[in-house]
Amino acid sequence: MAETYINPLIIQRADPYIYKHTDGYYYFTASVPAYNLIEIRRAKTLNGLAHAAPRTVWRKHESGAMSKLIWAPELHFIDGHWFIYFAATDTEELDELGMFTHRMYCIECDAEDPMASEDNWVERGQVKTDKDTFSLDATTFEHNGKRYYVWAQKDKAIKGNSNLYIAEMANPWTLKTKPVMLSKPEFDWEIKGFWVNEGPAVLHRNHKFFMTYSASATDENYAMGMLTAADDSDLLDPASWQKSPKPVFQSDLSTNQLGPGHNSFTVSEDGQQDIMVYHCRNYSDIKGDPLYDPNRHTLVKPFSYDDNGYPVFGKPVPYNYL
Amino acid sequence: MAETYINPLIIQRADPYIYKHTDGYYYFTASVPAYNLIEIRRAKTLNGLAHAAPRTVWRKHESGAMSKLIWAPELHFIDGHWFIYFAATDTEELDELGMFTHRMYCIECDAEDPMASEDNWVERGQVKTDKDTFSLDATTFEHNGKRYYVWAQKDKAIKGNSNLYIAEMANPWTLKTKPVMLSKPEFDWEIKGFWVNEGPAVLHRNHKFFMTYSASATDENYAMGMLTAADDSDLLDPASWQKSPKPVFQSDLSTNQLGPGHNSFTVSEDGQQDIMVYHCRNYSDIKGDPLYDPNRHTLVKPFSYDDNGYPVFGKPVPYNYL
Repeated sequence: MAETYINPLIIQRADPYIYKHTDGYYYFTASVPAYNLIEIRRAKTLNGLAHAAPRTVWRKHESGAMSKLIWAPELHFIDGHWFIYFAATDTEELDELGMFTHRMYCIECDAEDPMASEDNWVERGQVKTDKDTFSLDATTFEHNGKRYYVWAQKDKAIKGNSNLYIAEMANPWTLKTKPVMLSKPEFDWEIKGFWVNEGPAVLHRNHKFFMTYSASATDENYAMGMLTAADDSDLLDPASWQKSPKPVFQSDLSTNQLGPGHNSFTVSEDGQQDIMVYHCRNYSDIKGDPLYDPNRHTLVKPFSYDDNGYPVFGKPVPYNYL
Repeated sequence: MAETYINPLIIQRADPYIYKHTDGYYYFTASVPAYNLIEIRRAKTLNGLAHAAPRTVWRKHESGAMSKLIWAPELHFIDGHWFIYFAATDTEELDELGMFTHRMYCIECDAEDPMASEDNWVERGQVKTDKDTFSLDATTFEHNGKRYYVWAQKDKAIKGNSNLYIAEMANPWTLKTKPVMLSKPEFDWEIKGFWVNEGPAVLHRNHKFFMTYSASATDENYAMGMLTAADDSDLLDPASWQKSPKPVFQSDLSTNQLGPGHNSFTVSEDGQQDIMVYHCRNYSDIKGDPLYDPNRHTLVKPFSYDDNGYPVFGKPVPYNYL
């Protein structure tokens, strides 16, 4: 029997990332409302993550490039080592383009238990690309012996906040190849409020790579799109990726689920069911900047596939706690 | 059959306060890690509070006396109106005594649903006492037609951070009588790290009033004490209150439950079982100021009474999530 997941699963965690490790634990990290530190929690069940005591593993610097707005950490286990990718900046102010000024950073933990101590985490510095512009939301995956890095970044020649890029990695904090753009905001549902493509997440199923991402402003217009590539194609060739013209997941006003997005993927406890992890708001009458309203919550949703092997995400799940 | 409560119940909420209302909901509020706003959540079960989406009901001011370190809100329903008491200050800096500089404030919501909108909450100002000193952790209760206010406050003539006081109220934000001190830090377990009596909570059972409170520094030395008064005595007379010479609840190093305290009281879903609500840490190797480490978590623990009608709180409960 399938587990019943209690939603919202985790209160006030945006940009949620869940990784099921070989030790049987689900590891969870996400943006915290104060944007001031990176934490990890773990549990043997997804529902258990709601109660799992986090451990702070990294704190923002007092000043400098890693001192403000710590966003969207992801925890990856690469060749026997733990890595966290995250975005950080030196100011909450916007630049002359009206944009935040984040760059991507990588930290590494060589201890077997990533939650043992903050002292085990070492900074590996900025993950540099070919442009020195606003960068965020990096993820990574491996295929056929090659490690890929996928992220969102501003190109001053392209309208909007950020586009999606891919490159091969030389090591977990260094790119090997020149970034290529896979998607930019262009459809009407990608340019509501802001022109945005961000938050990529990669799913490998049915001989295809699916890359979901989030588009538009992070209010009720926030919606998820998807790129698809055959897994025997050249993943560094933009022509290998087909962009879905419509959103694959979006707000459901009937259940007050607003702006679902910045998803990741995991599997059920028995490993048999794919599960999407995302955040969503449940009210839109926010006072002041939505960035500082903490009520983006983490939800989990099992999903299935259509006859062509494409994921069908359906609608945001309503709350079901008692 | 008794409910099984999952602990920690609520991650990263310190100074937890749960109120079971006549509408059948448990309402929860507490200090948030950023100390920047007051939120309320509600659920029909205690376990449901772990998943209940909060609503922000008040935000700190940009500057001035209510602009920093919003601490320990409590939600009370008084004569058909909702009130929240909380401590706030204008600076994170310590004063010439090495103390924080909080005062107590009251806000009121006249709407039936306290979570409907921030706009429904009105500031009633500072709850002034006879001294203009560090004040925090107020609670209130009614007995025999009189409303009482109980809180922690600094007296410059008494060693330590704060003592416990009681006064009768003229209305929910105004005292009617001169405050009288009920307890000050004096026993060895009340003066570890800092000399502290704070976080009072009131329980009326077995023809007695029990006032629990928290003592010493908020690390693993934090522990709970108790005052007891007969419910037909003059509650404004310090002589009516007997102080327990030993802590009634303290750290359990064997289960890594460190510094339990700042409790409140509620009852089980069927109303038959008294339950203590408190926060506790699970690690002590904190980097920097513990105030800015978010990992004080809310736990709930059913408790019983001894043959004399006194509560027996036992030991902090170990974590039991999967």
